[in-house]
Amino acid sequence: MFSFDLAARSGQARAGVLTTPHGVIETPIFMPVGTAGAVKAILQRDLVELGAQIVLANTYHLMLRPGDALVRERGGLHGFTGWNRPFLTDSGGYQVFSLEGLRQISEDGVRFQSHLDGSAHMISPERSIEIQMNLGADIIMAFDECPPSTAPREAIAAATARTTRWARRSQAAHTRSDQWLFGIVQGGLDPGLREQSARDLIELELPGYAVGGLAVGESKPDRERVLDDVCPHLPEAKPRYLMGVGTPEDIFEAVARGIDMFDCVLPTRNARNGQLFTSEGRISIRNARFRNDPRPADPRCACYTCRTTSRAYLRHLHMAGEIVAASLLTIHNLAYYLDTLRAIRQSILLGRFEEYRLETLRTLAAPSAEGAGTA
Amino acid sequence: MFSFDLAARSGQARAGVLTTPHGVIETPIFMPVGTAGAVKAILQRDLVELGAQIVLANTYHLMLRPGDALVRERGGLHGFTGWNRPFLTDSGGYQVFSLEGLRQISEDGVRFQSHLDGSAHMISPERSIEIQMNLGADIIMAFDECPPSTAPREAIAAATARTTRWARRSQAAHTRSDQWLFGIVQGGLDPGLREQSARDLIELELPGYAVGGLAVGESKPDRERVLDDVCPHLPEAKPRYLMGVGTPEDIFEAVARGIDMFDCVLPTRNARNGQLFTSEGRISIRNARFRNDPRPADPRCACYTCRTTSRAYLRHLHMAGEIVAASLLTIHNLAYYLDTLRAIRQSILLGRFEEYRLETLRTLAAPSAEGAGTA
Repeated sequence: MFSFDLAARSGQARAGVLTTPHGVIETPIFMPVGTAGAVKAILQRDLVELGAQIVLANTYHLMLRPGDALVRERGGLHGFTGWNRPFLTDSGGYQVFSLEGLRQISEDGVRFQSHLDGSAHMISPERSIEIQMNLGADIIMAFDECPPSTAPREAIAAATARTTRWARRSQAAHTRSDQWLFGIVQGGLDPGLREQSARDLIELELPGYAVGGLAVGESKPDRERVLDDVCPHLPEAKPRYLMGVGTPEDIFEAVARGIDMFDCVLPTRNARNGQLFTSEGRISIRNARFRNDPRPADPRCACYTCRTTSRAYLRHLHMAGEIVAASLLTIHNLAYYLDTLRAIRQSILLGRFEEYRLETLRTLAAPSAEGAGTA
Repeated sequence: MFSFDLAARSGQARAGVLTTPHGVIETPIFMPVGTAGAVKAILQRDLVELGAQIVLANTYHLMLRPGDALVRERGGLHGFTGWNRPFLTDSGGYQVFSLEGLRQISEDGVRFQSHLDGSAHMISPERSIEIQMNLGADIIMAFDECPPSTAPREAIAAATARTTRWARRSQAAHTRSDQWLFGIVQGGLDPGLREQSARDLIELELPGYAVGGLAVGESKPDRERVLDDVCPHLPEAKPRYLMGVGTPEDIFEAVARGIDMFDCVLPTRNARNGQLFTSEGRISIRNARFRNDPRPADPRCACYTCRTTSRAYLRHLHMAGEIVAASLLTIHNLAYYLDTLRAIRQSILLGRFEEYRLETLRTLAAPSAEGAGTA
């Protein structure tokens, strides 16, 4: 039902094939974020056209609304949403730890108040796994403790040790054979803690491992150093998932260090704010220089938006607050991410990833990138 | 370049073929409203899949943003938006007359302040036609004065006479042969004024006529009485457009009186509020009884939304404030309107419109309609 096979390597970068009950995922992969069981502002058929292979959904949001029991009754996330390709759910840990002031942490788990209506809830490792079994994603995550990376070393050490205990409890609670449970390596920015976390979790022989606790405000060099510390300790034969990362530049750096899976709200959230990722760098469609610009959002993109609209029209729709602006820009930004990951994979298969990485990072860093609209 | 041919009659109801430079429109037709040059919350390709044959855009909104000069530079509405089927633009009259307190009316035209930024503008018949020539829709409307239907008879009489003078000025200002200019019959609820307005405008030998000043709060019987008064005076061989109307019930009544064209924000606006038109009557997707309902929005509909989603999922997305809820519900509501108009046309061609009208009105009025979700 499940397998992960490495098809090629280019330096530390890996091209793999991850088989799940709902289909095959070619890695490195970007997973669009569908917080409430739907990727924001885009229809499923448009996601399919873009070649999205897996969607991430958020346990915290779905347990509160519509409730995991209802989702289970309606056939799990696949039956409820009609998305018949793979899903991944997070553990809810990251979200509840973000509820500063509304949550209490103990060895048992986290008590918190809903951001929707203030109602009281508890997530323990067992409850997180119960919810995720009800949601029925193909890949689910162990419940972890995510302290801020700026917390004192002792606090991070304690949270990291607890994450291991919670991973054990998560594993013990998990009884569905049609789901893969991944562990999450914590340890903040401390190489020793990261290595310890990786070693402890690997003993559990989980089918995949994530690197958590990043993309929370640390610097880019710190983030890359953590990957340098962690990746060599992860099993070669298992998929590696960098949670919540990131920019296109971040993804190139992480693939170069051996990461296989990514998720991030950037392409979808930025789209709703009028920020576009293009082959020439980022642009804000609000910029007045696009007012009368007949060119597509990205001259090198073949997505529906770039095939059928001009920057002038996109800018107008965005400035007018039209919902279709969000849809059109979301289609393009996801096309950019998914196309980029496909190109990365192909470059790995051809043994020229490093060349492609340097070339792309150079283009994205070029001063002309910011001026993409003025050419 | 233009023609209008009647293919069949069933009682007073008419099935026609309206040929324009951007394609053929089969009447009776419903025109989705694309205020700012885009139908809200739906992509053009989804409109095409639904069989939308013409879109209405608003002169007032487009002159203010992005500006009609810019739209002209980008190739008119067709070039600017990429919609390559027919467009119709209104004259801007209805919108500026709605700016109570922000506008001054004179024989020359209407001075008003933008609802966007308070800037001062003027629309005269000549300026309205200039804007509409810049926008380049296939069908454009004469600039009319729309008093409230509750205004004193003298005020309505004066506005109606002015509408005729403004129609003459609109006609004189109009120089594009690739656009049809329609006149707008006014006269409030007064049969004499309506008849006079129709006679005066018919003398101008415009290629089509609209009935304006309705759908502004008058009762349903009043609205139908006006159509009873006006329609017999309109030329048989020319298209007839009832502006801003209406509910499915209204459309059946108007087709029965010989109207060919309709526009209304109801299907799109209601979709964004969670209100659905179905073959069993209207439902609010917010209703708690749909929480766990696996059925499609409308069991007799074949649109993308009804093919791929359940009421339970639609309700969840709407309650969670997801943009895709607006898109999915808009697709369904427009499918309902466009399918209904196609069925009306077919029933006219088969000579059984009256049967279909009575049958549908009975279904929509049945007490079970409101309970469609409880069966």
